[in-house]
Amino acid sequence: MKTIVIHAAKDLRIEERDTEKPGVGQVQIKLETGGICGSDLHYFNHGGFGVVRLKEPMILGHEVAGRVAQLGDGVEGFKIGQLVGVSPSRPCHACKYCAEGMFNQCLNMRFYGSAMPFPHIQGAFREILVADATQLVSAEGLSAGEAAMAEPLSVTLHATRRAGEMVGKSVLITGCGPIGLLSILAARRAGADLIVAVDLSDYCLGMAKKLGADVTLNTKDVPDALDIYKANKGTFDILYECSGAQIALTSAIGAMRPGGTIMQLGLGGDMTLPMMAITAKELSLKGSFRFHAEYATAMSLMQKGLIDVKPLITETVRLENARAGFELASDRSKAMKVQIAF
Amino acid sequence: MKTIVIHAAKDLRIEERDTEKPGVGQVQIKLETGGICGSDLHYFNHGGFGVVRLKEPMILGHEVAGRVAQLGDGVEGFKIGQLVGVSPSRPCHACKYCAEGMFNQCLNMRFYGSAMPFPHIQGAFREILVADATQLVSAEGLSAGEAAMAEPLSVTLHATRRAGEMVGKSVLITGCGPIGLLSILAARRAGADLIVAVDLSDYCLGMAKKLGADVTLNTKDVPDALDIYKANKGTFDILYECSGAQIALTSAIGAMRPGGTIMQLGLGGDMTLPMMAITAKELSLKGSFRFHAEYATAMSLMQKGLIDVKPLITETVRLENARAGFELASDRSKAMKVQIAF
Amino acid sequence: MKTIVIHAAKDLRIEERDTEKPGVGQVQIKLETGGICGSDLHYFNHGGFGVVRLKEPMILGHEVAGRVAQLGDGVEGFKIGQLVGVSPSRPCHACKYCAEGMFNQCLNMRFYGSAMPFPHIQGAFREILVADATQLVSAEGLSAGEAAMAEPLSVTLHATRRAGEMVGKSVLITGCGPIGLLSILAARRAGADLIVAVDLSDYCLGMAKKLGADVTLNTKDVPDALDIYKANKGTFDILYECSGAQIALTSAIGAMRPGGTIMQLGLGGDMTLPMMAITAKELSLKGSFRFHAEYATAMSLMQKGLIDVKPLITETVRLENARAGFELASDRSKAMKVQIAF
Amino acid sequence: MKTIVIHAAKDLRIEERDTEKPGVGQVQIKLETGGICGSDLHYFNHGGFGVVRLKEPMILGHEVAGRVAQLGDGVEGFKIGQLVGVSPSRPCHACKYCAEGMFNQCLNMRFYGSAMPFPHIQGAFREILVADATQLVSAEGLSAGEAAMAEPLSVTLHATRRAGEMVGKSVLITGCGPIGLLSILAARRAGADLIVAVDLSDYCLGMAKKLGADVTLNTKDVPDALDIYKANKGTFDILYECSGAQIALTSAIGAMRPGGTIMQLGLGGDMTLPMMAITAKELSLKGSFRFHAEYATAMSLMQKGLIDVKPLITETVRLENARAGFELASDRSKAMKVQIAF
Repeated sequence: MKTIVIHAAKDLRIEERDTEKPGVGQVQIKLETGGICGSDLHYFNHGGFGVVRLKEPMILGHEVAGRVAQLGDGVEGFKIGQLVGVSPSRPCHACKYCAEGMFNQCLNMRFYGSAMPFPHIQGAFREILVADATQLVSAEGLSAGEAAMAEPLSVTLHATRRAGEMVGKSVLITGCGPIGLLSILAARRAGADLIVAVDLSDYCLGMAKKLGADVTLNTKDVPDALDIYKANKGTFDILYECSGAQIALTSAIGAMRPGGTIMQLGLGGDMTLPMMAITAKELSLKGSFRFHAEYATAMSLMQKGLIDVKPLITETVRLENARAGFELASDRSKAMKVQIAF
Repeated sequence: MKTIVIHAAKDLRIEERDTEKPGVGQVQIKLETGGICGSDLHYFNHGGFGVVRLKEPMILGHEVAGRVAQLGDGVEGFKIGQLVGVSPSRPCHACKYCAEGMFNQCLNMRFYGSAMPFPHIQGAFREILVADATQLVSAEGLSAGEAAMAEPLSVTLHATRRAGEMVGKSVLITGCGPIGLLSILAARRAGADLIVAVDLSDYCLGMAKKLGADVTLNTKDVPDALDIYKANKGTFDILYECSGAQIALTSAIGAMRPGGTIMQLGLGGDMTLPMMAITAKELSLKGSFRFHAEYATAMSLMQKGLIDVKPLITETVRLENARAGFELASDRSKAMKVQIAF
Repeated sequence: MKTIVIHAAKDLRIEERDTEKPGVGQVQIKLETGGICGSDLHYFNHGGFGVVRLKEPMILGHEVAGRVAQLGDGVEGFKIGQLVGVSPSRPCHACKYCAEGMFNQCLNMRFYGSAMPFPHIQGAFREILVADATQLVSAEGLSAGEAAMAEPLSVTLHATRRAGEMVGKSVLITGCGPIGLLSILAARRAGADLIVAVDLSDYCLGMAKKLGADVTLNTKDVPDALDIYKANKGTFDILYECSGAQIALTSAIGAMRPGGTIMQLGLGGDMTLPMMAITAKELSLKGSFRFHAEYATAMSLMQKGLIDVKPLITETVRLENARAGFELASDRSKAMKVQIAF
Repeated sequence: MKTIVIHAAKDLRIEERDTEKPGVGQVQIKLETGGICGSDLHYFNHGGFGVVRLKEPMILGHEVAGRVAQLGDGVEGFKIGQLVGVSPSRPCHACKYCAEGMFNQCLNMRFYGSAMPFPHIQGAFREILVADATQLVSAEGLSAGEAAMAEPLSVTLHATRRAGEMVGKSVLITGCGPIGLLSILAARRAGADLIVAVDLSDYCLGMAKKLGADVTLNTKDVPDALDIYKANKGTFDILYECSGAQIALTSAIGAMRPGGTIMQLGLGGDMTLPMMAITAKELSLKGSFRFHAEYATAMSLMQKGLIDVKPLITETVRLENARAGFELASDRSKAMKVQIAF
């Protein structure tokens, strides 16, 4: 079978690997769609990010959906041909944090396509994927492309749950790539009232508008665009920081109301923050990382039509054109979520 | 001007009162619509509820919307002819609880149409209403009927906020009168996944279905309808108890999962509860009463099309037919929210 | 070895059982002390409580401490002769709730001395006890009597954690048996300011005073004793209801301030509650049941001298006088915590 | 009367001012004790901190206690000669945040001795102070020195409440000046189990030990002292960052367990933070600023003997030696809290 393997920055190859059989409790899936995520792009463009660096070839990909091809012994609840999403979250269920139900903090996490441990955790961009049945969620009624979106949507649902009750709240989104746009959908689903989206790209802001942002601001054209929200110490209850850019976070801090909550989703390097403002306004800056139970929630909310991710999927390329897909996804002025059809 | 006055159970009269002028900071409103609430019906059918009893004639009504007719001195931000909703929540802004921002617990609350203090707090069912500008919220883009619904919607938004973060949660609603139906809308808006609605009336359950409940159960036909949700100690994360009926609450308790939250909105008398189950399953039973800041939120969410209350408004009667409206609203097999056109 | 077995109400026997050897991961403990708990007394006096009834002979007891006598294979971190407390909380670590870290809600809990499942879960009142090493907590520096108190103390620490942040809060305790008194210690440890304790027994109230209650009230002598706390809708932030008596809870509800939290620890039958007051004052009534991680916390806080339970232990009887100990513990005017020396 | 006035860095003068009479609702207090706070030292040593700079002479001081000398009209509940603490928190009770009960975020706060607005808010280091009766809390049973400590203690109680439930938690304190030491007392009072204190000064760490820290670490001698707490992604539930030093915060972040909470009390400038660690470990970094209702709580807990601040007060100097007191307080190797006797 074909797989998409990254060897080093810009060295992306389509390589053959042996097809695996499902073991006990496992399912073999014929992959239909795989979405290219920001971390895939980091490996593709830079060979990693921060201290996470490629040290050996690694199959990329963790946003995947496909059809059940074969059931291992003991698997119930799935049938051949059924469309499923496959959660890339594979905690050990044995460590200290798993025991407390904090699965996304598992000490032995084997999240698809991660270069953090060595040997790396191989990813899911392969024609035939064998996964544990517990990773699977039925995607009936959705397209494979939507089903693959359950993964990034889960990231934003997890952040939304960590942000706390959101009915009628005023929300700021900085960074309108796929995670920022899905944060708009998640915040809206959780009851947010005013949603303001900020980015440097008019293309992204156009998408933000289409996905329901009430106001969009391009800080390239109007550097002080957020200033109108700084009255009375600031106005936003909640910030989803999805850019990973220091300037986005620091300028947003001034627009947060006292007691507000900042959800940090963007993965950047070190940032220099105005601690005096954070302290004096009593802001809460909370990290949010991956997800676990939210994967099934994401799928269910899409199936019920309560969240519609279709507008985000701007391009679908065939497996043999994967490299072009990665190039396209790297250009935030032309494409939002790029998916690969297997 | 004409007003709707209750003198005693079943003794509802349309009476003349003098029109008032707006004072400083006040606005005179030409009422367009008034919704009949459950408490109005209690006064109409029983002369009160629990220890709250009519002791003098009282103008009913607290779900109202109309058009600005005259501005008192010092009022800004409103213009003649503008459609507004009028919040009936009038806290003193001076007592212990107001000082803490718990306005709905104000020690000197003057909520429209309440027989609790004596002299009673006169209500808002009158052709011309003078209110504080701070009670007004613009209802532009809505019909007057929708605007009047901001009040009961606020009740359910307040309960929803008190219930906490709701993304992907499993929700049970007992009692599908207007408050139960609006709880469906509020829970859905806050991100609930599975919503199950229970009632004794097929008419109400049909409305529940229309408003988005995933499952509806008639416990008259199938007394043990909730049993399928009792696996593994129970399955619901959150209950909105909107019936005020002991049997609804006690049978729902068995279907709540450990650690679940019960929002008690229904106002009934004393109830005999299975304390062993509440204690052993570590349920949280929380009262929820009225609202304050949620009034503006309710209006905004309707204006953005994020909550659609129109299907609830099944009847609108003219002022001179108010009595018929009250009779109709009392029959839960024929009408849901009944409104009066002024 | 000798064990304390209940056959039916008032039929308590000291019986011989075979001594067990520790298996892999287990430890054999020579018991020193066992405290008599309220549930032990229910079996002794009434053969059970609520729907929980004795259906076969059952060894009682779950508040125990002793010295390590023998280590099973693979056990590390304990040495022969070491004083340890033994947590009676034995969840399955495999069910739905264990997976979420809610161990006290385990679907297959094997809590010592419980008649709820059949066959019953045999208790820990036995000269030689074999337990999993994971149940053990070192009690170095404490007496065996204190170590045995870690169990009921855990119950109140669990409730305290569920009650939320308590610094400077005003706390009411209804029912001053061992759980009520330990609630005083737990609430104080968590930063409570005013603590008012209520009971019908002057003996218990004397103990409450000694353990740090600021005010004690005997509602037998002064039925309206709580009335002075009912100003402005009520004054207490938190109630620990430890009596399981309806009258205690209902009269306390009037003294709770709006938004207050009721922790229900007392296990009584059904109770008729003033739902109107709970709803209108927006109280939160939360069940609290057993504990899990709090067992180690309880031991540590005692070892550091941050909680002193010694005054509660009013009597220690020898194993052969167990029956007298049970009689004594049943008389709340003469003894508080009665322990058995093995 | 004499007052302590700062004119510029190192330019501290004792100056005469007119004595004021109490107006309606006010009280005249003969000051006994004033504690020198970190912000007083910033004005004294550097003429301000961050963007807060002295622009005119300002009376310093906001940690004060004294005896009631004269009652203005309408004041009840105080008597001549009574020892009281005076809260420096003077919100406007009219702005948006006051209305929500967030008094410490008041838009018009007049906190004693603050150079932030201009004209500056004059402080309380004066022989005769006139204050609103609502600022006063009886300090009966305490020394004037202890009573003056209610202010900095309030700061740490506020942070403790914002940190949430703390029973059995593992707590790290970075920076063992007065605020760090009081954080030890506050965390202990709230139920913390393990408390580890970190500083560069052995004198401060000796104080930390005396005040109840379980472990003290000097990071000057052992730069990697915190490394032993970094097992399994880190071990501390809660951090009180009281140093305002970037290195303290960043090295502590590695020792925080996933999901842990950082309370930022130290007021420093901008800090460069490891955002990847904050995000991936899902830490919550919360600012905490001043206090309001906690002032009365602080006094009450001291009066009941539940918090003992006496060991912190290492020096008391006479008013005429105020300058020497400021010098002494600036040397963290010789003195902890320095107070001035008026």
